[in-house]
Amino acid sequence: MSRLDVTEKIVATKVAKGLKWSDVAQKVGLSKEWVTAACLGQMTLDAKQAGIVGEIFGLTDAEQKWLQVVPYKGSLPTSVPTDPLIYRFYELVSVYGTTFKELIHEEFGDGIMSAIDFKMDLTREADPKGDRVSINMSGKFLPYKTY
Amino acid sequence: MSRLDVTEKIVATKVAKGLKWSDVAQKVGLSKEWVTAACLGQMTLDAKQAGIVGEIFGLTDAEQKWLQVVPYKGSLPTSVPTDPLIYRFYELVSVYGTTFKELIHEEFGDGIMSAIDFKMDLTREADPKGDRVSINMSGKFLPYKTY
Amino acid sequence: MSRLDVTEKIVATKVAKGLKWSDVAQKVGLSKEWVTAACLGQMTLDAKQAGIVGEIFGLTDAEQKWLQVVPYKGSLPTSVPTDPLIYRFYELVSVYGTTFKELIHEEFGDGIMSAIDFKMDLTREADPKGDRVSINMSGKFLPYKTY
Amino acid sequence: MSRLDVTEKIVATKVAKGLKWSDVAQKVGLSKEWVTAACLGQMTLDAKQAGIVGEIFGLTDAEQKWLQVVPYKGSLPTSVPTDPLIYRFYELVSVYGTTFKELIHEEFGDGIMSAIDFKMDLTREADPKGDRVSINMSGKFLPYKTY
Amino acid sequence: MSRLDVTEKIVATKVAKGLKWSDVAQKVGLSKEWVTAACLGQMTLDAKQAGIVGEIFGLTDAEQKWLQVVPYKGSLPTSVPTDPLIYRFYELVSVYGTTFKELIHEEFGDGIMSAIDFKMDLTREADPKGDRVSINMSGKFLPYKTY
Amino acid sequence: MSRLDVTEKIVATKVAKGLKWSDVAQKVGLSKEWVTAACLGQMTLDAKQAGIVGEIFGLTDAEQKWLQVVPYKGSLPTSVPTDPLIYRFYELVSVYGTTFKELIHEEFGDGIMSAIDFKMDLTREADPKGDRVSINMSGKFLPYKTY
Amino acid sequence: MSRLDVTEKIVATKVAKGLKWSDVAQKVGLSKEWVTAACLGQMTLDAKQAGIVGEIFGLTDAEQKWLQVVPYKGSLPTSVPTDPLIYRFYELVSVYGTTFKELIHEEFGDGIMSAIDFKMDLTREADPKGDRVSINMSGKFLPYKTY
Amino acid sequence: MSRLDVTEKIVATKVAKGLKWSDVAQKVGLSKEWVTAACLGQMTLDAKQAGIVGEIFGLTDAEQKWLQVVPYKGSLPTSVPTDPLIYRFYELVSVYGTTFKELIHEEFGDGIMSAIDFKMDLTREADPKGDRVSINMSGKFLPYKTY
Amino acid sequence: MSRLDVTEKIVATKVAKGLKWSDVAQKVGLSKEWVTAACLGQMTLDAKQAGIVGEIFGLTDAEQKWLQVVPYKGSLPTSVPTDPLIYRFYELVSVYGTTFKELIHEEFGDGIMSAIDFKMDLTREADPKGDRVSINMSGKFLPYKTY
Amino acid sequence: MSRLDVTEKIVATKVAKGLKWSDVAQKVGLSKEWVTAACLGQMTLDAKQAGIVGEIFGLTDAEQKWLQVVPYKGSLPTSVPTDPLIYRFYELVSVYGTTFKELIHEEFGDGIMSAIDFKMDLTREADPKGDRVSINMSGKFLPYKTY
Repeated sequence: MSRLDVTEKIVATKVAKGLKWSDVAQKVGLSKEWVTAACLGQMTLDAKQAGIVGEIFGLTDAEQKWLQVVPYKGSLPTSVPTDPLIYRFYELVSVYGTTFKELIHEEFGDGIMSAIDFKMDLTREADPKGDRVSINMSGKFLPYKTY
Repeated sequence: MSRLDVTEKIVATKVAKGLKWSDVAQKVGLSKEWVTAACLGQMTLDAKQAGIVGEIFGLTDAEQKWLQVVPYKGSLPTSVPTDPLIYRFYELVSVYGTTFKELIHEEFGDGIMSAIDFKMDLTREADPKGDRVSINMSGKFLPYKTY
Repeated sequence: MSRLDVTEKIVATKVAKGLKWSDVAQKVGLSKEWVTAACLGQMTLDAKQAGIVGEIFGLTDAEQKWLQVVPYKGSLPTSVPTDPLIYRFYELVSVYGTTFKELIHEEFGDGIMSAIDFKMDLTREADPKGDRVSINMSGKFLPYKTY
Repeated sequence: MSRLDVTEKIVATKVAKGLKWSDVAQKVGLSKEWVTAACLGQMTLDAKQAGIVGEIFGLTDAEQKWLQVVPYKGSLPTSVPTDPLIYRFYELVSVYGTTFKELIHEEFGDGIMSAIDFKMDLTREADPKGDRVSINMSGKFLPYKTY
Repeated sequence: MSRLDVTEKIVATKVAKGLKWSDVAQKVGLSKEWVTAACLGQMTLDAKQAGIVGEIFGLTDAEQKWLQVVPYKGSLPTSVPTDPLIYRFYELVSVYGTTFKELIHEEFGDGIMSAIDFKMDLTREADPKGDRVSINMSGKFLPYKTY
Repeated sequence: MSRLDVTEKIVATKVAKGLKWSDVAQKVGLSKEWVTAACLGQMTLDAKQAGIVGEIFGLTDAEQKWLQVVPYKGSLPTSVPTDPLIYRFYELVSVYGTTFKELIHEEFGDGIMSAIDFKMDLTREADPKGDRVSINMSGKFLPYKTY
Repeated sequence: MSRLDVTEKIVATKVAKGLKWSDVAQKVGLSKEWVTAACLGQMTLDAKQAGIVGEIFGLTDAEQKWLQVVPYKGSLPTSVPTDPLIYRFYELVSVYGTTFKELIHEEFGDGIMSAIDFKMDLTREADPKGDRVSINMSGKFLPYKTY
Repeated sequence: MSRLDVTEKIVATKVAKGLKWSDVAQKVGLSKEWVTAACLGQMTLDAKQAGIVGEIFGLTDAEQKWLQVVPYKGSLPTSVPTDPLIYRFYELVSVYGTTFKELIHEEFGDGIMSAIDFKMDLTREADPKGDRVSINMSGKFLPYKTY
Repeated sequence: MSRLDVTEKIVATKVAKGLKWSDVAQKVGLSKEWVTAACLGQMTLDAKQAGIVGEIFGLTDAEQKWLQVVPYKGSLPTSVPTDPLIYRFYELVSVYGTTFKELIHEEFGDGIMSAIDFKMDLTREADPKGDRVSINMSGKFLPYKTY
Repeated sequence: MSRLDVTEKIVATKVAKGLKWSDVAQKVGLSKEWVTAACLGQMTLDAKQAGIVGEIFGLTDAEQKWLQVVPYKGSLPTSVPTDPLIYRFYELVSVYGTTFKELIHEEFGDGIMSAIDFKMDLTREADPKGDRVSINMSGKFLPYKTY
């Protein structure tokens, strides 16, 4: 058994039972973004969270333990993603990558936006010309320092 | 001469003169995100915008014309970026890619967030534990339809 | 169980029963292009469509549910396809890619042809020198806008 | 001097003079699709065609001769294209590749659609919900035969 | 079940029974080159041919049906082959590729040698200094045409 | 100066003077296949051959000396060739690679067809349905031996 | 002019003058590790530091300004390094990567060792059996948090 | 059965029993770095060590024998690691690689730091601004010699 | 069943029984280098050799037949090997590759050292400063010839 | 100026003057293998050696200094070499890599053959059936040790 097996069981159960990530998140008591990532094998749950998730998806004790182990992260099968939805995010990095770099350095100096001390919020933005996906990302700025 | 030459001239002039992208954007009258991307060879300016940018960076007429030609987009030298700041965004796609996919599909059904009908806003978020980079992205949802 | 398993079952059943995609499409009441893509794991069916497809291919309830889940798209095993028929399309992108780009920009300005708000029609074109494959593609033009 | 140099000169002259591919094509007396591909270094002109193109773009005799040499084809700098417009075509091959394959084989049997005995026509399709790009492709079907 | 399973069964049966491809070809009544490629999952058999092959290798009805389905072609596990015998052919393409191109264009003009309307014959050439492998390839020349 | 420079000079001179490889080969007194490969930087000439080639293409003494140095072979810019003519040969290796392997081993046992002790002859084969490219390859069989 | 040009000038001057990184670092007043990385185009200097470095290496004002611009980081030409000394570090990541992961997670929980809030010290460790390279790395632990 | 199977069994047992690498190491009587690497399939144990590890993880005799066989090393599934923690080490090699090279050569001359005659020690470094990961690496310097 | 299955069975049996390749080779009556390569799926045995190997490793008749089939060669899972021992050989090719080329051409002219008509001998070389691995390789020189 | 420039100058001078590596090596007083590698930019010369090489190839003082700087090693332009002579060595690693590994571990235990404390000798081996290339490699065995 591996974490991948647990992820696949969660996903298959979600399809079979017709569950929603937002409902799962509400029961866990955390954001839908973090909980979905955790269920998809990218984040680590504590014992209590794993218990709730385990109950929802009918996981065994051993499977719940796997949810508490830090996973080998990286959710995509290829380095350039083939799925159109995910590719669009890759394209944003490709087209706007140097823009991100220039503007963050202009505002903060040398350093990075943390992808660890990071949170995000994904919502629907109503728009008469067609609703929009709105994503708010917030990551701590970490400066390079001399030593 | 090519668009790349123009981009390099703009960047070299910016370093030499100590200019700021936000000041350039203000003169052009558009967001700093769009104007920086355009100056870095990712977006297309109209004649008036090219004139303003041309004056700031001392571009010839021919160089200004290049700014009005749609560029071959993609700002990064390798498919997996090596620069730490840009890599963090790639890592977000790698770790959260399937989460983006699940949550957008849960909210909107099958389709994508457009990377074309798209805008973003990058700001500093003051935080006593260390300021944060805040990025608001907004892209139109485009549904797949049957035919 | 995963969507891939369902796709493989559909394909194996099609071989065993000697079915035709155009007949399947007629029963579903949509174009053969969209229905084939859906059966091959690239599009998402609604409950009624999944029911029809399920009956044709003898799918269980759970398998029909998988057809209603948005799949991880991308139907090819390698980034440069090895199959001669599919490679010819890749070659067209390789040889004519910059031509597509120049002519669409000349006609429409900066932007893309959507691969989402897209439909196509593949037909046989009779020709005394040997019949031809005719493909009509129609995709909405999406302009980049300033912001 | 190489064909690439000639291509770059043509493109730079086009930007400087503000020429249109459709006008160039009209003067050459062929479709805009073929003429653009030829000017971008993908097709071979005969002496007369090269003369017309040479006059338009101010090419020397030697440069016109290069236009009559069969080029090393392939217009893209990376195997997975980074430009969003061109990528959408690659995505169509990725998502619909197996569908192309199934439907062509269903109609014609084993073989391919030729990318050599091939022509295409790219036009604007007016649409109240936003104009569309329409591409008609026509390629001879070439069957595999036993021997 | 998939075509790959059928190929593997054919190969395993050939080893177990000590069969020869040339004998199989003789029974099918076609060249050994085409029949071997078909048995290795690269060509499509008709019902009668599949029946003969099926009898030789003890294939079920379903397996024989798979032989009549156009396969996803490409017989090698990596884009640069590791097997020394097959690599030598890749090396010929690498070393002589531009020579093939120059000489075919010199003789025929712009176009290609078809790999579809193609046949070949592989024979032993007796030689006192060591026997040689002789391969005769014949492919139709397909010209690019203007349109 | 490098061998690549000499190759480029030869090719550019050939275009400018409108020379033919078959004429060059006749003057050198060897097959057009070998001489073309040598002029394209894949084979090594002796002093006399280099002198003839040098006279035809107007090479300096130093350039003629480069023709006598064993080159770093490999004539293609990418491991999977993008040029349609050359790709067809790559496709033959991809589709028929395992067939080559099976039939050569069936006839000769374990070993390879040499790509060094190798010659080939490329001719036009008249055919009422369209002329064909005929390629005869002959390579010594080299057996693996135990030790 | 670009940062790469400045890096190359620094390196060429260092060779020509026979300078030592440790002496440069002493004049700048920072560690040899950070100063070397900065001179090699991986870190950003402030005006004063750039002035000292500029004096040592004979840099112009414009070149000194480039040293104050955040560079596009990544010092290696290939994703798997070919240089034996640098490869050994890559090998350590390859062989010990999962060990690093397990032990850091066992001690700290889910998170990473920062490569930004990071410093290191490289020294010679005398050893009768052959001196050793000793590297002390220290990076802040950054925990993933729920949100 | 293969070494990979044994590694997977060890990891699964560790999760199920909630064991700690540092406790395992203490029982084996060696450093936690070496023992973890060995349990993860990167180092070779002797019979006694394999016996202790076997008892802890409930391994059969055959499984214990596999621990004594030199493994095919390399613990990561991709050449550029996707896991954020491991990637940071890769990033250090990418950003600091040429710095490592310069400083080791400045101190020792041409040669490498051995990754074989190598040891390391990973500890927690208390810090009021957030604890740090401290890694001490020590590798023998191996000089290139003339011959 | 495939050759890979036979290789894995041989390796697993070797571990379980604690056999040595040199003993296997002695029983087969050939060099340890050739026999090990054959047992690892890289060389082809005749019936008698396969019988001896089959007896040692407890192979069935079918498995022994697989040993007599020419295998698809190439023993490594990645094109740049990750295992440190095997990587060192790859590094020798990387660092000394052009040296091999220059010296062999200087001695023999244009051609190659055969990797088919090849043998090698790997022995321990006693040395007071630490024993050395000594490898003697001998490959026939194959000249390119004109034609 | 860079080391690459110096290497190219050495190679071009060697061609122009018709020098031999073995003569260069004799003047330097070291093996032809080491001296060739050094001249090709893979090894580091001391001042005296650089002086001799500089005199032979007409190098300036600055160029001689570059010969004394440790180079970024790796002599090949692609990770899988395209040159047939060099490829054969790569093929040996591919086919015999696991054999090297098994036999060295059987003789020495876990560890590697050093590619640093390494020397080799390349000679002609007379043989009535065709002369052979003989290569003797000798590398120190470096054992992994527990810690």
